[in-house]
Amino acid sequence: MSTDLLTDEPLTIGSHTLRSRLIVGTGKYASYELMGESLHRSGADCITVAVRRERLIDAAGNNLLDFIDASRYTLLPNTAGCFSADDAVRVARLGREILLGLENAGADWVKLEVLADKKTLLPDPVASIEATERLVADGFQVLCYSSDDPITARRLKEAGASSVMPAGSPIGSGQGILNPNNIRICLEYLKDGDPDYPVIVDAGVGTASDVTIAMELGVDGVLLNTGIAHAQDPLRMADAMRYATAAGRLAYLSGRIPKRLYATASSPEEGTITRQPR
Amino acid sequence: MSTDLLTDEPLTIGSHTLRSRLIVGTGKYASYELMGESLHRSGADCITVAVRRERLIDAAGNNLLDFIDASRYTLLPNTAGCFSADDAVRVARLGREILLGLENAGADWVKLEVLADKKTLLPDPVASIEATERLVADGFQVLCYSSDDPITARRLKEAGASSVMPAGSPIGSGQGILNPNNIRICLEYLKDGDPDYPVIVDAGVGTASDVTIAMELGVDGVLLNTGIAHAQDPLRMADAMRYATAAGRLAYLSGRIPKRLYATASSPEEGTITRQPR
Amino acid sequence: MSTDLLTDEPLTIGSHTLRSRLIVGTGKYASYELMGESLHRSGADCITVAVRRERLIDAAGNNLLDFIDASRYTLLPNTAGCFSADDAVRVARLGREILLGLENAGADWVKLEVLADKKTLLPDPVASIEATERLVADGFQVLCYSSDDPITARRLKEAGASSVMPAGSPIGSGQGILNPNNIRICLEYLKDGDPDYPVIVDAGVGTASDVTIAMELGVDGVLLNTGIAHAQDPLRMADAMRYATAAGRLAYLSGRIPKRLYATASSPEEGTITRQPR
Amino acid sequence: MSTDLLTDEPLTIGSHTLRSRLIVGTGKYASYELMGESLHRSGADCITVAVRRERLIDAAGNNLLDFIDASRYTLLPNTAGCFSADDAVRVARLGREILLGLENAGADWVKLEVLADKKTLLPDPVASIEATERLVADGFQVLCYSSDDPITARRLKEAGASSVMPAGSPIGSGQGILNPNNIRICLEYLKDGDPDYPVIVDAGVGTASDVTIAMELGVDGVLLNTGIAHAQDPLRMADAMRYATAAGRLAYLSGRIPKRLYATASSPEEGTITRQPR
Repeated sequence: MSTDLLTDEPLTIGSHTLRSRLIVGTGKYASYELMGESLHRSGADCITVAVRRERLIDAAGNNLLDFIDASRYTLLPNTAGCFSADDAVRVARLGREILLGLENAGADWVKLEVLADKKTLLPDPVASIEATERLVADGFQVLCYSSDDPITARRLKEAGASSVMPAGSPIGSGQGILNPNNIRICLEYLKDGDPDYPVIVDAGVGTASDVTIAMELGVDGVLLNTGIAHAQDPLRMADAMRYATAAGRLAYLSGRIPKRLYATASSPEEGTITRQPR
Repeated sequence: MSTDLLTDEPLTIGSHTLRSRLIVGTGKYASYELMGESLHRSGADCITVAVRRERLIDAAGNNLLDFIDASRYTLLPNTAGCFSADDAVRVARLGREILLGLENAGADWVKLEVLADKKTLLPDPVASIEATERLVADGFQVLCYSSDDPITARRLKEAGASSVMPAGSPIGSGQGILNPNNIRICLEYLKDGDPDYPVIVDAGVGTASDVTIAMELGVDGVLLNTGIAHAQDPLRMADAMRYATAAGRLAYLSGRIPKRLYATASSPEEGTITRQPR
Repeated sequence: MSTDLLTDEPLTIGSHTLRSRLIVGTGKYASYELMGESLHRSGADCITVAVRRERLIDAAGNNLLDFIDASRYTLLPNTAGCFSADDAVRVARLGREILLGLENAGADWVKLEVLADKKTLLPDPVASIEATERLVADGFQVLCYSSDDPITARRLKEAGASSVMPAGSPIGSGQGILNPNNIRICLEYLKDGDPDYPVIVDAGVGTASDVTIAMELGVDGVLLNTGIAHAQDPLRMADAMRYATAAGRLAYLSGRIPKRLYATASSPEEGTITRQPR
Repeated sequence: MSTDLLTDEPLTIGSHTLRSRLIVGTGKYASYELMGESLHRSGADCITVAVRRERLIDAAGNNLLDFIDASRYTLLPNTAGCFSADDAVRVARLGREILLGLENAGADWVKLEVLADKKTLLPDPVASIEATERLVADGFQVLCYSSDDPITARRLKEAGASSVMPAGSPIGSGQGILNPNNIRICLEYLKDGDPDYPVIVDAGVGTASDVTIAMELGVDGVLLNTGIAHAQDPLRMADAMRYATAAGRLAYLSGRIPKRLYATASSPEEGTITRQPR
């Protein structure tokens, strides 16, 4: 983007190293062409792809993967649409096979989603823990989608997840970070004695400021899809999300001023629980 | 920054045209060198400078203006530290003389601040209206700092202000936009039948997301100082603010997704009063 | 209500002393009968009445005042619907005559509203200050509706207002207290060296919690109308508002626990700017 | 409290019927005398008591239960301080024995807390589900403390809980309802086809407005302890909480006005997802 970001460390998740802290999905675009250009503008070098067949092949018989330059992006297969641990494990393995066939570096990891309910698409904590354990045992690096409950997040790390990905708000809801307090406690737990453990906000991002706020809390990255794909102008929103990620990351690293009732107040109002950069 | 922003219009205020929608101040830096580099990184092409003598000359006798490349930046003289209309008018005229001496394009405009109270630095609505009228009569293009009260904002426009600059929160408080509802009504009033009238959020910005949120509301620009100057790392925060401005502007132009309780909800939760881009 | 509230002081505004800290309006009810019962349930002993003739007499020719027991309530005439200082002064004087005719104790005070715009019903700060000065000179005790701008609020007190009544949000908007920070600064200014000066939140209250939150900030009372009159069940909402006023007042006097990220955190998160009871 | 509340239904949880929708705890008071008077003022007819021995007997050897009129209150034994399902089940059974000995009606139910972490006191979702199943199988009516994750809440109901009690925020944090969105989805899930299923917000309440806001969301009751016990004036705060519960319940039943940008706006701003009373 510009030289100033070179001073930031890249984002390391398991054995993968990413230049961009924004990971984007491929669903819900009006066309594969629009998707491709939006991915490009987002600045992401990691793209998550739903493995279930009905999501890889569109009505016209086009294969999504034909529209993504696999030499440029690390693919992150995901188990979107899975509602049980069994189903998620099966789909994760299918994704591994497909990516091995493509010789893509993403064959060894998976974004695990085990959902509990078709209406809200909220994650199932118990099945997510079980599926994480099974996939880790099978050699996967697991990035696990989760609610923002800090205890569930900690359990997922204990189950072997390479990254825990708490939701800001329900998938596609566009509400941003509804409970920054929970994200702060997730960060305390997951980075306790392990400051480089990657925590990524996944789901609920509606607009650029949601990304910036997430990054300012000290998370390591943001994953989003609908916020770009369903914006009225996805290309411009992809640009916005790229800038928003950089803005939030840099603001976090910069150490913001405290909040005060007014400037000359003798003591800061709040913000004392802001995580400071290392 | 990158080609994508070339598709946006520049920001026009009176007879001035700015590439960047971020305007930054020069106060409170640890050194003039740090100030100079921070201004550069912010991407701003308009810099606001307090005209009062004690703010132009530092303890070592250095003149602030010697550290700003006047060929590169449009200077926007401001009346910071003035607590009456008389004082503000006098200082504005002094600024004009200084900038005429520098042959800087900023000689014909002024950022008007008439403050009511040294403790909170809140603006005085009555004196601000009076000073605006007098300075406009004297040929100035006036950009007037204001509270976020929409009626006062409208009065300032009626008094001839080239731009009204409502505060997000008190100067230096770092609280961001405390009342987005008021900013929305300010925009309704000030842009009614006059969509290009420039509205700039001035004051209260603490971190990058505050800028992004302001721009997403549909304001035309943001002016800030302390948020960069007093950050632990002003250079990185200047970068953050530059990106945050671009992110918020582009998100506003992109038309964000609606907020919903969850994705499959049949009707959007809120956000129906979001100003849409023209 | 119950004995516990007897330990609280009554609310004193100028020469008037009120048992209840909730003041309610009489507008917008489906019928005068419903209004009368709602007033009763609200627990208020002060009722504000719009003086303009079209608001006193309904379509059937009934006079509002015939439905209010003037021996039970102190009437507070208001200048709702006035859009200039002249108009407001004229209406205030008319109200005085009417109440003198009724021999009601409310003849010597007025709730002053000088509005700036029919669309938003926001108050006009300049005209409000002028009208306050004129009415005070004419012997009125003036309770002045205002924006939440602390400087305007202070000016109104300086102009002689017996009480300043900042809006929580626009009249009828139901948004509650949009900017608690401004209410806190209003309290700092208006009670500086004068802790008994009455500050009353007027306008914007939508539901019970809005009242409780206002009282917890340390204001002396709340004035509302639409929140009860346009609720689906005004009688129950009148009860709710009565309880909400007591709850907020007592909570303010009780000294709440600090906010913390979690219970065993060593330091409170925020709330340090909460006004503590005297 | 007053006749108006007689029109509300009592709160039914399993086989128990409560007049008050506020349930209070007995911990953290400066003295048992202060506790007793605070319980009285809160208006609660159900009191929750920690069963662990070190919490029943104070340093002077006094037994908490000697200070509670068991003929007046239904006792709700709780498993506070338990960090595993085994421990919680054991403590629940101990509580049953103690209450059977007292011939108190509360012997057949338990407030189940299975905590995951001493620092944050957040609940353990997996162990809570397991303990619920075991206690239900053992004949208990289980009221289960939970995070606000709607999926975990639904699982607890499926495990047989008589009531699910989502946290507003961490125990003792005083932050109120951090994520109303989650509480709304909890209500959708738990009351789907079962509108009388009791949902009670437990934990995080700091002041009166937190209770009012919780009740306005449509929950059936609120359980709290620290907010009263650690207030500077617990007696007054107990009064405040009693009123706040009534205010929120009545406001919920009343059907509040919609929120609008300003009164004459043509469409409501938000609030469209507010649960309406049946």
